[in-house]
Amino acid sequence: MQMYDLIRKTRHREALTGEEISWLVSAFTDGRIPDYMMSAWLMAVCCQGLTEEETAALTIAMRDSGDRLDLSPVGAVTVDKHSTGGIGDKTTLVIAPLVAACGGYVPKMSGRGLGFTGGTIDKLESIPGFSTSLTVPQFLRNTREIGCCVIAQSGDLTPADKKMYALRNLTAAVDSIPLIAASIMSKKLALGADCILLDVKYGSGAFMKTPEDAAVLARLMVHIGKTAGKQCRAVITDMNTPLGDCVGNALEVEEAIAILRGRRSDRLTALCLSLAAQMLTLAGRGTEDACLKMAEDAIHSGAAAEKLRQMIAAQGGDPAVVDDPARLPQAAVQKTVTAAEDGYIASIQSEEVGLACLELGAGRTADHAEIDPAAGVRFHGTVGDHLRQGEPVFTVYGRSGALCETAAARLAAAITWTQSPVTPGILIHTVIK
Amino acid sequence: MQMYDLIRKTRHREALTGEEISWLVSAFTDGRIPDYMMSAWLMAVCCQGLTEEETAALTIAMRDSGDRLDLSPVGAVTVDKHSTGGIGDKTTLVIAPLVAACGGYVPKMSGRGLGFTGGTIDKLESIPGFSTSLTVPQFLRNTREIGCCVIAQSGDLTPADKKMYALRNLTAAVDSIPLIAASIMSKKLALGADCILLDVKYGSGAFMKTPEDAAVLARLMVHIGKTAGKQCRAVITDMNTPLGDCVGNALEVEEAIAILRGRRSDRLTALCLSLAAQMLTLAGRGTEDACLKMAEDAIHSGAAAEKLRQMIAAQGGDPAVVDDPARLPQAAVQKTVTAAEDGYIASIQSEEVGLACLELGAGRTADHAEIDPAAGVRFHGTVGDHLRQGEPVFTVYGRSGALCETAAARLAAAITWTQSPVTPGILIHTVIK
Repeated sequence: MQMYDLIRKTRHREALTGEEISWLVSAFTDGRIPDYMMSAWLMAVCCQGLTEEETAALTIAMRDSGDRLDLSPVGAVTVDKHSTGGIGDKTTLVIAPLVAACGGYVPKMSGRGLGFTGGTIDKLESIPGFSTSLTVPQFLRNTREIGCCVIAQSGDLTPADKKMYALRNLTAAVDSIPLIAASIMSKKLALGADCILLDVKYGSGAFMKTPEDAAVLARLMVHIGKTAGKQCRAVITDMNTPLGDCVGNALEVEEAIAILRGRRSDRLTALCLSLAAQMLTLAGRGTEDACLKMAEDAIHSGAAAEKLRQMIAAQGGDPAVVDDPARLPQAAVQKTVTAAEDGYIASIQSEEVGLACLELGAGRTADHAEIDPAAGVRFHGTVGDHLRQGEPVFTVYGRSGALCETAAARLAAAITWTQSPVTPGILIHTVIK
Repeated sequence: MQMYDLIRKTRHREALTGEEISWLVSAFTDGRIPDYMMSAWLMAVCCQGLTEEETAALTIAMRDSGDRLDLSPVGAVTVDKHSTGGIGDKTTLVIAPLVAACGGYVPKMSGRGLGFTGGTIDKLESIPGFSTSLTVPQFLRNTREIGCCVIAQSGDLTPADKKMYALRNLTAAVDSIPLIAASIMSKKLALGADCILLDVKYGSGAFMKTPEDAAVLARLMVHIGKTAGKQCRAVITDMNTPLGDCVGNALEVEEAIAILRGRRSDRLTALCLSLAAQMLTLAGRGTEDACLKMAEDAIHSGAAAEKLRQMIAAQGGDPAVVDDPARLPQAAVQKTVTAAEDGYIASIQSEEVGLACLELGAGRTADHAEIDPAAGVRFHGTVGDHLRQGEPVFTVYGRSGALCETAAARLAAAITWTQSPVTPGILIHTVIK
C-alpha cells in the first residue's frame, strides 16, 4: 500500500477502505509514514471530510494502535462520560460520585487542561493529597469497591491519537469533525466502558459554535460508539455562558461539593442530575425518570457527598474538604467587583472568562506548565439575575493584586448588562440517542 | 509570522498577504519551515485554491528564491516558450531555429523528461556531440550570435520550486492549477525573457483533461506573466492524439529536421508555424499574419534548416544530421505493424503511446535513469487517414525483439478504427492574450 495513493483518494473525496485506513494508522504509529505525508493527509481530511464509515474505521484503528484496558475485573456494567470541554465544566466531579451513589460504576480517565482552565485532573489535584496516578489494578479495584475512580490517562493508550494530535496541533488541522470524533472515541473505546455518554458543547468557549455543528459531531460519535458495540448517547449543551458560578480549579471543586451536598439548585445542578440520570439509564438502572429521582435522592440523603468522601480517601486525598472547603488551596488576593448601576446580566462571554482565568494562572499556556490551583473567579450572579448598584458581581482570586486587577477588567468587559428582564437560554439543547 | 496561521488562513479560504507569501517561500527555502507544515499548506492549496493575486505573489516569491538570469547581454528583445508537455511534442526543436531564422532571439532552458518520453534536452542530446550544459556566458553569447540556444536548467534558479515540487510529488499535491502555474511561471520569470508564449495542452496524455481546464491554467499564467511585466500569451492545444508521427528522442529530432527542411505539411507543421508566428508577434516583429509569412518563407528558403545547423554546431553537435538523419542513433530492432483490414484511424490514445514508449526505454521511470535515444515509434498514418489491409500502420524501434513485441501490442491497442470517414479535431483550440 502506498501513502501517496491514500492521500490522493482522500483529496479527491474517494473513500478509503477499512484495510487502507488500518494500514495508514499502524504505519504512521510505527514511523513508516513520515510526518510530511501524514500532515498532507490530515489536511485533505480537514478540507474534504471522511464518510461515517471511514471515520468509524479510523477510530477503531486508533483504538487498536496501543493498549486496551480490560474492565472485566470491575464485574459490573461500566459507564463513561466525555465532555468536549468548556469553561467552568466541573460536571465529572459531581457525576462520578453521584452515579456511583446510585449503584453505577464509573471508571474515568481524564486529561489535564491545556489553555483556559485546568482539566478534571488538575481540579482533583487541588484537593490536598489527592492522587490521579494510580496503577491500573488500583483503578479497577477502586471502581469495583467504591463505584468510581478518576485518574489521569496512563499507559500506552491510543498512541496513534497522541501522534496525530501533535501533528494536527502544529498544522491548523484540529477543527475537523471526523478527526475530533475519531480522537475522542478512540480513547473512550480503548478505555472500554460498556456505556458512553457524550456531552457535546456549543457556543463561545466551545469548539463547535452552533448547536447544529455540535449535533453533527455528536451524531457521528454516537454512530461510532454503536458501531463498536457500545451503549452510547449524546447531549448537546450550551457553553455560551460559563457552567456554574466558579471557574478555577479549587473553586470548581468547592462548587461541585456544594452541589453534591444539596446546597445548590441552579442550571448546573440540573445538568449534573440529567447527565447522571442518562448514564444510569444507559447502564440499565431504570427509566430516565426513575434514574433522575434516584440521583436527586442520592443528593438529599447525603449518599452522594459520602461517595465523594470515599473516592477522595481511596485516592489519598483529604476527605474533610467535603465538609470544610476552606481546606482547599486559598488565594493570596481576592478582589470583588460590584455593579456600577442597577441592571440585569444579559450575557457572560465564556471564552473571555476562560482567557481571563488563563492569565490568572488557572490554566496552562504550555504543556507541563505549573498552574495555580487557587486562582479563578466566582460570579455572584448569572445570566437573567437582577443586581442593584454596589452589589457584588464577581470575585477574582489570584496570586497578586496586579494579576487580579488585569483579570477583573477583562471579566467586567465580558459581561453585558440590560435594563429589561432576560430569560436564560436552555442548557440541554438536544439528546441524541 | 507563524506558519500555523498561514495554513489556517489558506485552509479557510482567507487570502494571504503578499508579505505572508513572500515570508512563507523564503522561510521554506531556508529550511525554517519544516516539511510537515509545508505539505499541509500545499494540500490546503490543492483543496481550497489560491486567488489570482496570491498565485502571482507566490510566483514572484519563488522567482526570487534563487538566482535570476540577466539576459541584457543578448542585446535584443528575447522570447521564450513553454509547453505543459505532451506525447511527441518536439515543437521547441522546430521553433527555436525557426524564430531565430526570422530575426527573433530565443534563449531557452529546458528540462529532462520524467515518465513518458524524454524532454527537449534528452531529444537534443540524441544528436551526436550535442551539449546542453553550456555556461551562462556561452548561453548568452550563442543566443546573441545565432539567435537561439537550448540548454538544460542550470544554476540555482528557483530553488523554492525544486523543493516544493519534490514535496508535492510525494504527497499527491501536483495537480493543482495555482501550484502548476506558479511552478512554471517562476522558472520562466527567473530566466527573464521579455516575451513568453505558453502552449497549454489538454486531453489524454496531458495534465489538463479538457480545453476548459487548460484555459483556466492558461489565463492564470498569462495574468501572472503580465503582472510581472512580460509580453505574454497562451495557446490551448489538443493532446488527445500524439503530436506528429514520431514519439522517441532521435525519431523526434528527425521529424523536426524534416519540418525545418520543408518536407512536411501536416498538423504539427501548422502548429509550429503558428507558435513561431505568435512568438515573433510578441517580440514585436510584425502582425501575426506577417510573422506567419516570415516563418513559412524561412522554411522554404532553407534559412530555418541553416539556423538549426548553426545551433547544433555552436553546441558541439554534428550539423550534418540535418542533411543526413541516418547519423542519428539507430535502433537495433524495428518492427512494423500493418493494418488487419481496410479502415480509417479514428483515434490514437496519446497516454498509451507515451506509456508504450516509456516501456521501450524512450523515457525515464526514475530520476537520472538512462534512456535509449533510438527507441520509439513512427506512425505511418494519423487520425482521419484511410489505410488498406496490409499497409504499414506504425513501426516500433527498440533494443530487442521482445521489447518491440510488447510495445507493438500496446500501441496496436491504443488505436481505434472505423469504417466511416473521420475529421481530425482542431489542434489549436484557443489563443489567450
